[in-house]
Amino acid sequence: MKKLILVRHGESQWNKLNLFTGWTDVDLTENGIREAYEAGKLLKSEGYHPAICFTSYLKRAVKTLNQILDAMDMDYLPVEKSWRLNEKSYGAIQGLNKAETAQKYGDEQVLLWRRSFDVQPPALDMHEERSPRMDHRYDELTDAEIPLTESLKDTIARLLPYYRETIIPAMKAHEQVMIVAHGNSLRGIVKELKGMTNEEIIKTNIPTAVPYIFEFSDDLTLQKDYYLGDQEEIRKKIEGVANQAKKK
Amino acid sequence: MKKLILVRHGESQWNKLNLFTGWTDVDLTENGIREAYEAGKLLKSEGYHPAICFTSYLKRAVKTLNQILDAMDMDYLPVEKSWRLNEKSYGAIQGLNKAETAQKYGDEQVLLWRRSFDVQPPALDMHEERSPRMDHRYDELTDAEIPLTESLKDTIARLLPYYRETIIPAMKAHEQVMIVAHGNSLRGIVKELKGMTNEEIIKTNIPTAVPYIFEFSDDLTLQKDYYLGDQEEIRKKIEGVANQAKKK
Repeated sequence: MKKLILVRHGESQWNKLNLFTGWTDVDLTENGIREAYEAGKLLKSEGYHPAICFTSYLKRAVKTLNQILDAMDMDYLPVEKSWRLNEKSYGAIQGLNKAETAQKYGDEQVLLWRRSFDVQPPALDMHEERSPRMDHRYDELTDAEIPLTESLKDTIARLLPYYRETIIPAMKAHEQVMIVAHGNSLRGIVKELKGMTNEEIIKTNIPTAVPYIFEFSDDLTLQKDYYLGDQEEIRKKIEGVANQAKKK
Repeated sequence: MKKLILVRHGESQWNKLNLFTGWTDVDLTENGIREAYEAGKLLKSEGYHPAICFTSYLKRAVKTLNQILDAMDMDYLPVEKSWRLNEKSYGAIQGLNKAETAQKYGDEQVLLWRRSFDVQPPALDMHEERSPRMDHRYDELTDAEIPLTESLKDTIARLLPYYRETIIPAMKAHEQVMIVAHGNSLRGIVKELKGMTNEEIIKTNIPTAVPYIFEFSDDLTLQKDYYLGDQEEIRKKIEGVANQAKKK
């Protein structure tokens, strides 16, 4: 049985402050580091052994993966990083508080920005300080590829070439593959894997640092998917994600 | 001016206990983690910006690199891992105390095992627990490639294909490249870069977690090499490495 392991990064500084993060490269909290290490210990105790790992260009994902590999005693595994696995860009609302933004623009507007399939938040300017164009790590991207804001639809559109050309071939070549990424880039992968509609994926909330396992037959037909760990705790984590943008 | 940055991993658990480590996958100490992070801060403050990084399959090197990249705020950089950058195998003396081994076999024999160019320590058995053959990370290696013991000459011989086929092309393609590895695998690279004799390289001691910079013209002719940081502290670190196997 082939397996794909998806993990959303642990709690970040801005998750904790309840700010829109997107492409901002914020660090993990102490709790986020601990969560990530625990996820790795769980994967190790269940005997998982990925052949290759994928992650984004953002440190909260890279460092979550580093913690997981260290807990699994598999620091030596190959890791490939891609900007296409980055979180959805929240454009000009990056750095704003989610609850305050909800108070200012209304729950409905913020829910559209966070959870509609194709509504984009207001855009960054190409040459303002927060623009990915000003960050050397994205020098390889053309201006057209630089996201100044994204809907979930946009995120999935830039993720899919990497998913098809790199991740699927890795899944064909190996028994187990692991991806450590972000709430919305992982949604894109889950939507593809499960053939979900746009309506279904926007209702799907992925908890932080919980291994999400997909099992496949050898021809990559999905057999089943499930979260690893205490199901009651996981349910509470999912509810926490869903309620984040509600007014306080 | 093209630059190559070499860094030997920070202090490991067995450096501290003064045991022969070789291919044993021991962790960094708290001090080793701190040293590595300091090396990264220094590289950052001096404006270094490698395009790609290389390291071994051993966690003391991988985690040193992770700390450096984190301190440089460059967690996103591509990292390639290879067993060919691993430390010299110390064969059957792996796990023995350096000072006790010197008392038992004599300073001279231990110095031969540690510092001769072509004398191998006693070998492991292919199928004993400590053999790399029993470790899944080396499944890709043929039996002939599995080192059961190594002289420095052997270490350099298995390092060179990777150096020539992967690292040199990376140096041609990029302005800056970083390698985080081990005392003896780095010796192999330094020997090549500086065209040292066997006698010269065995007298060369590389301190832990100090960036060792090589500058080249565009056609990769070596211009100069130097350690980054407080030269007096570095001199003391080098002496510490040289004296490690002396009797206590």
